[in-house]
Amino acid sequence: MKSPSKPTMAHSHHTVERENKTALANRINRIEGQVRGIGKMIEEDRYCIDVLTQINAIQSALGSLSIQLLESHLAGCVKGAVEAGDGDAAIAEVIGVMRKLAR
Amino acid sequence: MKSPSKPTMAHSHHTVERENKTALANRINRIEGQVRGIGKMIEEDRYCIDVLTQINAIQSALGSLSIQLLESHLAGCVKGAVEAGDGDAAIAEVIGVMRKLAR
Amino acid sequence: MKSPSKPTMAHSHHTVERENKTALANRINRIEGQVRGIGKMIEEDRYCIDVLTQINAIQSALGSLSIQLLESHLAGCVKGAVEAGDGDAAIAEVIGVMRKLAR
Amino acid sequence: MKSPSKPTMAHSHHTVERENKTALANRINRIEGQVRGIGKMIEEDRYCIDVLTQINAIQSALGSLSIQLLESHLAGCVKGAVEAGDGDAAIAEVIGVMRKLAR
Repeated sequence: MKSPSKPTMAHSHHTVERENKTALANRINRIEGQVRGIGKMIEEDRYCIDVLTQINAIQSALGSLSIQLLESHLAGCVKGAVEAGDGDAAIAEVIGVMRKLAR
Repeated sequence: MKSPSKPTMAHSHHTVERENKTALANRINRIEGQVRGIGKMIEEDRYCIDVLTQINAIQSALGSLSIQLLESHLAGCVKGAVEAGDGDAAIAEVIGVMRKLAR
Repeated sequence: MKSPSKPTMAHSHHTVERENKTALANRINRIEGQVRGIGKMIEEDRYCIDVLTQINAIQSALGSLSIQLLESHLAGCVKGAVEAGDGDAAIAEVIGVMRKLAR
Repeated sequence: MKSPSKPTMAHSHHTVERENKTALANRINRIEGQVRGIGKMIEEDRYCIDVLTQINAIQSALGSLSIQLLESHLAGCVKGAVEAGDGDAAIAEVIGVMRKLAR
């Protein structure tokens, strides 16, 4: 990943609260387990259609995670940037990432 | 997951060869590592846009894995089913899963 | 569009029957009307979210049309190609187009 | 479509300027022509793979139109709503539509 270790727009970067972080961590652990699960399915010669269905479920879980992070980004960083008079750059940045998400 | 432990169309279920299985296992391990990576990014308060970019990369990796499994399913199970005169059911089944993949 | 006027795999190209063709034509006419509709919405300064919702509906209609054509292609051309002993090329071709559909 | 004829958040609804409207109208006309084109392709029994490729091109054009409208919505309505102290509702609304766009 070519992401910088420092956020591009540090001033508007809000931190996710501890409580939400635990919820997110659990969610990501679950997705990690699902990915491990498809590895096991292939090892056990499970039927391709079942593996595909399971990959599809992981895609949905990740898509839904993306949207949640996007929401928190809009409600946190972007809103903060607009209030600080620096909304245009934050909006251009979020559109850049959405352009990839929505194919 | 509501997948049966026995394939629906056992007669046409071809097994992935050992060599390909190792390649698939490596690929899935890599995706598992990427998912673990986003967990770490959130723990470390990494910038949301970077996390979203990384989730997007995982989605692409999974999408590309899906297509590979689909190809192997068509070239193995579906082709075998057609040759055995049982193609229509196999095609209906694969279309069912594609309907979900292609939103 | 760089599509050839002659099908690449003419021997396995099955024709859609008249009846199905009329149904498809009606469906495409409806989609064409929906696209014209968003033009009108923008002209009339309709709320962006409503326009986005409508574009989304068109995307779904097109996605569902794609799947139907794909099904008819698998059940017609690809099945025919497999029966004629020429399945691998037909499968490679269909996978190529799916690779684009499923992002 | 169940969209209201009045925008839900009228105070923050910015109008697209004449110049941009003409560009948008041209773009939508082009998409309408592409949809009509696939109707013609089916009428002429064109090869399924070519029709699928063309539908895919229309999907991309619509996806890219969505993103442009989304950008203009964020930079116009949502930014305006945040500045007017009413950002949260506008963000919730835009997330609702994105949830559908990003499958």
